[in-house]
Amino acid sequence: MPKYQRKPTSRSHLRVPSGHRRRDSGDGTQIINGDEPYAGAPQPAAMLPVLDDRQLAALRGVGHEWSQVCADPDEWREALPVDPCLGRYPSADELSPSRFGRFVAVSGKDDQLPPIETTSAAESPRTRTGRAGRQARRVLLGPPLDVSAMAVERMRKLIALPVLSADALSSVAYGPEAMLAVLVLAGTAGLAYSLPIGAAIAFLMLAVGVSYRQTIRAYPHGGGSYIVAGDNLGRVPGLMAAAGLLIDYVMTVAVSIASGVAAIVSAVPSLGSQTVAIGLGVIVLLLVGNMRGVRQAGVLFAAPTYAFIAAVAALVIGGLVRAAGHHFHPESTPHLAVIQSLGLVLVLRAFASGSTAMTGIEAVSNAVPAFRPVEWRNARVTLTWMIGLLIAMFAGVLVIARLDGAVPSSKETVLSQLAHDAFGSGPVYFFIQGATAAVLLLAANTSYNDFPRVLFLMARDFQAPRSFLRIGDRLTFSNGIIVLSVLAAAIYAGFRGNTESLIPLYAVGVFLAFTMSQAGMVVHWRRHREQAHWRRSLAFNAVGAALSAIVFVTAGVTKFTSGAWVAVLSIGVIVVTALRIRRHYELARQQLALHPGSIDIPAWLCAPARSGSQMNAAARPPEVPTPERISDAETEELPQEVVNLSVVPVEGLDLAAMRTLAYAASLCQPVLALHISPTDEEADRFRGYWKAWGNHLPLEVVVSPHRALVAPLINYIWSLHRQRPDLTLTVILPEIVVRHWWQRLMHNHVAPRLRRTLRGLPKVVITTVPFHLAR
Amino acid sequence: MPKYQRKPTSRSHLRVPSGHRRRDSGDGTQIINGDEPYAGAPQPAAMLPVLDDRQLAALRGVGHEWSQVCADPDEWREALPVDPCLGRYPSADELSPSRFGRFVAVSGKDDQLPPIETTSAAESPRTRTGRAGRQARRVLLGPPLDVSAMAVERMRKLIALPVLSADALSSVAYGPEAMLAVLVLAGTAGLAYSLPIGAAIAFLMLAVGVSYRQTIRAYPHGGGSYIVAGDNLGRVPGLMAAAGLLIDYVMTVAVSIASGVAAIVSAVPSLGSQTVAIGLGVIVLLLVGNMRGVRQAGVLFAAPTYAFIAAVAALVIGGLVRAAGHHFHPESTPHLAVIQSLGLVLVLRAFASGSTAMTGIEAVSNAVPAFRPVEWRNARVTLTWMIGLLIAMFAGVLVIARLDGAVPSSKETVLSQLAHDAFGSGPVYFFIQGATAAVLLLAANTSYNDFPRVLFLMARDFQAPRSFLRIGDRLTFSNGIIVLSVLAAAIYAGFRGNTESLIPLYAVGVFLAFTMSQAGMVVHWRRHREQAHWRRSLAFNAVGAALSAIVFVTAGVTKFTSGAWVAVLSIGVIVVTALRIRRHYELARQQLALHPGSIDIPAWLCAPARSGSQMNAAARPPEVPTPERISDAETEELPQEVVNLSVVPVEGLDLAAMRTLAYAASLCQPVLALHISPTDEEADRFRGYWKAWGNHLPLEVVVSPHRALVAPLINYIWSLHRQRPDLTLTVILPEIVVRHWWQRLMHNHVAPRLRRTLRGLPKVVITTVPFHLAR
Repeated sequence: MPKYQRKPTSRSHLRVPSGHRRRDSGDGTQIINGDEPYAGAPQPAAMLPVLDDRQLAALRGVGHEWSQVCADPDEWREALPVDPCLGRYPSADELSPSRFGRFVAVSGKDDQLPPIETTSAAESPRTRTGRAGRQARRVLLGPPLDVSAMAVERMRKLIALPVLSADALSSVAYGPEAMLAVLVLAGTAGLAYSLPIGAAIAFLMLAVGVSYRQTIRAYPHGGGSYIVAGDNLGRVPGLMAAAGLLIDYVMTVAVSIASGVAAIVSAVPSLGSQTVAIGLGVIVLLLVGNMRGVRQAGVLFAAPTYAFIAAVAALVIGGLVRAAGHHFHPESTPHLAVIQSLGLVLVLRAFASGSTAMTGIEAVSNAVPAFRPVEWRNARVTLTWMIGLLIAMFAGVLVIARLDGAVPSSKETVLSQLAHDAFGSGPVYFFIQGATAAVLLLAANTSYNDFPRVLFLMARDFQAPRSFLRIGDRLTFSNGIIVLSVLAAAIYAGFRGNTESLIPLYAVGVFLAFTMSQAGMVVHWRRHREQAHWRRSLAFNAVGAALSAIVFVTAGVTKFTSGAWVAVLSIGVIVVTALRIRRHYELARQQLALHPGSIDIPAWLCAPARSGSQMNAAARPPEVPTPERISDAETEELPQEVVNLSVVPVEGLDLAAMRTLAYAASLCQPVLALHISPTDEEADRFRGYWKAWGNHLPLEVVVSPHRALVAPLINYIWSLHRQRPDLTLTVILPEIVVRHWWQRLMHNHVAPRLRRTLRGLPKVVITTVPFHLAR
Repeated sequence: MPKYQRKPTSRSHLRVPSGHRRRDSGDGTQIINGDEPYAGAPQPAAMLPVLDDRQLAALRGVGHEWSQVCADPDEWREALPVDPCLGRYPSADELSPSRFGRFVAVSGKDDQLPPIETTSAAESPRTRTGRAGRQARRVLLGPPLDVSAMAVERMRKLIALPVLSADALSSVAYGPEAMLAVLVLAGTAGLAYSLPIGAAIAFLMLAVGVSYRQTIRAYPHGGGSYIVAGDNLGRVPGLMAAAGLLIDYVMTVAVSIASGVAAIVSAVPSLGSQTVAIGLGVIVLLLVGNMRGVRQAGVLFAAPTYAFIAAVAALVIGGLVRAAGHHFHPESTPHLAVIQSLGLVLVLRAFASGSTAMTGIEAVSNAVPAFRPVEWRNARVTLTWMIGLLIAMFAGVLVIARLDGAVPSSKETVLSQLAHDAFGSGPVYFFIQGATAAVLLLAANTSYNDFPRVLFLMARDFQAPRSFLRIGDRLTFSNGIIVLSVLAAAIYAGFRGNTESLIPLYAVGVFLAFTMSQAGMVVHWRRHREQAHWRRSLAFNAVGAALSAIVFVTAGVTKFTSGAWVAVLSIGVIVVTALRIRRHYELARQQLALHPGSIDIPAWLCAPARSGSQMNAAARPPEVPTPERISDAETEELPQEVVNLSVVPVEGLDLAAMRTLAYAASLCQPVLALHISPTDEEADRFRGYWKAWGNHLPLEVVVSPHRALVAPLINYIWSLHRQRPDLTLTVILPEIVVRHWWQRLMHNHVAPRLRRTLRGLPKVVITTVPFHLAR
């Protein structure tokens, strides 16, 4: 099968570009707000920032200066010795398909700027190892996907409920247990407090759920905590919410996997020693699966959640039936030693641990656009259902645990104990454990969608490295996925996969994000007083914010020493880092802006260009003087500002050196050859050879009596720069490229060392002329 | 103190270079022979190969072609926008000395080519870490040394004897013991064989000594085994000798240090557990000391040898006195278990082990030029003295050991036992142990002079990486010293500093070198039959060669399984590697030669250039047609053969990109800008900006739907190359250089990745235009 074709296409991208769109979907410079179609949707074009009017005017100004001194653009094009469209290519029959046809000409040649599209052959690396790596990648991750494959799926409520609530509902697997694990420190008496504290948490769930119903209405295009807080409270609160979320997602992966592995180990105790290995294996699976780009929706993803709901329901009903047998009297628990006296601190810590059952509650509000129309209404219904199920399951498990007298143990999870007591060790037990493990895995997978998206949004606001904007060839945010996997694996392994010791780090991040989000909504309603029911909405959000803040402070204070300090510190570090990153990008942007400093931009330049044509000459003012900006700053924007001098370090007069000299001379710019000599005798000899050659180019020999090579060269070039700071010095280095690694030992590595050192010098351009040894 | 000065100098290097000297001392292409002044003397100029007549003619031919198409050389010089001599520099008073004056103009400006010499400030790296590293180096190794400091010392015989014989005489410390350690396997009866075997070894010493006397006469300029064998027997035997020597030197370091540490541990048994640490510490000291450039001669180096001679003499006399007490009857030894029956194999193994006492015997013949005149006569006298001392000390120790009934032990060396028995544990005992340790350290140090020199000679013949030619700033062969230290440390640590287990690897290498050297001398005398006494010399050398060969085979066979196989294998590997290296350099030389392929060089070009002037125009033939060599091979030697096209990958239109475009346009060569776009929309947007700028340069946009960046770019450039294989494609890359390491994460690294990948493409020149972010 030939690898290339001239693809007939009806795509409309040959239309004249509309110049400049202020509200482009790929907008990278504007602060994101809720009015955009889907705030978290990946946009490959986001890497190219949209230019604002001022930037465009500067661009036109520079272009105008070029046109005063430069040859006619058409001359430049006619001077091209190649056909850039690759159109004059021999046809498929004439040539072997493996060498050519890596590009597809999308349209005919009549248009002035026919675009070229790569075929997959053009993405193939040219080295053998590169191709092998690509092949391995293909096998593991599948073929690359076109942007057009990025379909936004719309979910039915019956699918959306399990997909979006997996994170929240799965918390029932560890939340109640985490609470009991704190209470049990106070002995048998402590366990009695489980029901009141659980009631408080259930109320909290209700309040936060109602609060998020307001967010859904206000942000029908998706209102993540980062967006809501950033929009309404400002940059730092937004970053605090983002930091909380990032920590939350890392912890969700670690805790969900720890809890899921605990469910498996409870059922198969012989796997107990392999906890860490199993967990890391699951993280690797999630990494590969998400790098491939796992689809979020579908029956496959809905099943575990429904199975888990069924499992918990069975557990609760089975427990109630058993309890009915002895008239709902709690079974006697073995008398437990009192390790810590029952006080307010213990109760608050139990409350904070139990509230980890609320993590993931915000998922629905993030994903409103993924619902079928009317989106916000369906999202609200789904959220209501989720909250109802969450409260019912959470309360059910707590009540049954109380009736059953279950006590947290490091060997077996509470859910497993309850299942054993209700159903023995039969198939129902294994179904319950399997469903629990599956829903926890699904919850961990949810983080793999959300973590990279938060980083994407931050990067779009220049608050995270721009590499998180990059969409991999499988349409996934590969960089974010890798970072999440590494962090989660490190934390999971660091805590030896122990759920109980992970919990203290958990609640802090989520509830900070909740608080910021709800507080942002309060400000939102105050700003939008024209909307119906704004007072009621504001009240609901205010209650949610207040309660979330209480949990955040409680979790942060009561668990500070047992791990929450890590989370608090991390939030601080993330916020400070994000601000520094933003500052760096801002400074870089200023330094990279055309026409640095404030120059007056004539008004006529601010007019948008006539589409599809050169600027009308009549519209130009008669004369714009070329600015006098020739200096040692790296601000040359015009060819005539560049004053060239080529410096060619020459070691000996072999073919590689001669080629380099010929190349330097062919550029028709002044050339100075430079030879570093260890002794006067060697210098004389070299000059003799230079004269034998004919002394065609100016040569300077520097005697370096201590045989140093790089430093004298660098310092010589620096001295030239000091003589004429306006010069652009092009250092042209011959470099011998060998075929085999061991041959590298045979040649010196002055060229790479020089290149590394020269990189630091101002106004120095580094040119390498490779000479390839064939054998 | 100002860092620079205009140094008035009377050096004669301003003379017109004499063009081309066939037998230059820095000759790198000729096979070295014994006629050169000092074959092992380091020559910094050896890095620049001497051109032969044919190469010079090719150079003149290329120069002639340049002169037909190129501007007048003077025009090029006048076009220079800077003063390359740095002569128009402001004076010291006008400028801060820290920034300028890194170079010294050695002569006035009236000469056409005034040379520049670096001051030490010009060798100072420009980065802070670089300077700190240099400072640490200075503290550890001292200031850099000028080549003129490389004085060749001439030694008196009284100094030469101890300095050159340290290696040989110190072998007495382990040779006899190694022999006894084998014999003791046969129990008490075995030890009785020590004297006959010792006598055989003493005869061997005599024969080899007499043989080397012939070498001294024949190679008055220094006749190392590598040189003698290579000269007379050919390349592979020379390499075998070199390989044997290299292994010998590594083993000398390891064995001498092991034995020296054993002498120390015998005196201070509490250090027994620190054997490896002490030995590695000594290797580090030797490394640093030799990197500093330890002077070889002087009282400091003579003392240990004389002390050791005195110590052994005292031991022997003391032993004889004691033995006289009981009428020279051997003392009764404790009855020893017979581990192995006494047979021919055991005797031969004992012989091979004992002959390690002969290592270092070749030192005098290597260093003939270091003697005072008449060199060869003084060297012969010294050699005779050394052999006499060696035989006396070797025999003395063996006799005393026999009379004393000393038995090798892992706790205490034989010499220490004898000293204890003769002098108790008083100061004389400690003097003997100290002298032994000191002479062994000195012997190890000898290898640090010889190992790098053999590598230097091999590298000069293109049989080792050329980096071993390099003379460090302390006038030492730093690379060879480092390699020796690493190898010796690895072997020493690998064998846990145990002398006995190191011995089997030892003898093989030395005796191979001996054999090759003596056999080479046999051929030498056959070739030089005109010389007096050639028959007698040949006979002596033949006997030496035969005996050495017998020891080599004996050592190789009897100890093959106990370690000699490592030495044999290493010799093979070294020889094969050296041949492959030579082949690589030969192929590289062919590919790097001017005018590749055989072209006819007109006779007039072969005439040497008139010194100090351009070639006389009248001497030229009227016309030499420019050869038609424009192809895709990288063989351009003339500017007009270079057909340029600059390709500028552009990501966005910021200042860095604009500077790069301006730079590309300033070279007055065709330019093609290239943008890789992830989507059609982004492509349209970019083209819109390009038009707003004015469309000054041809632009091609490649849509890469899978968001690959590097591969499409590389393949596009490859496609251009396929269109016009004669083009030299200059890929001009903007690269943002940040100030702090963490800022690197903020920017993409496409430029370095592209550079790495582009390096492999033929006829592609890579230019980096750095843009320095100030903050």
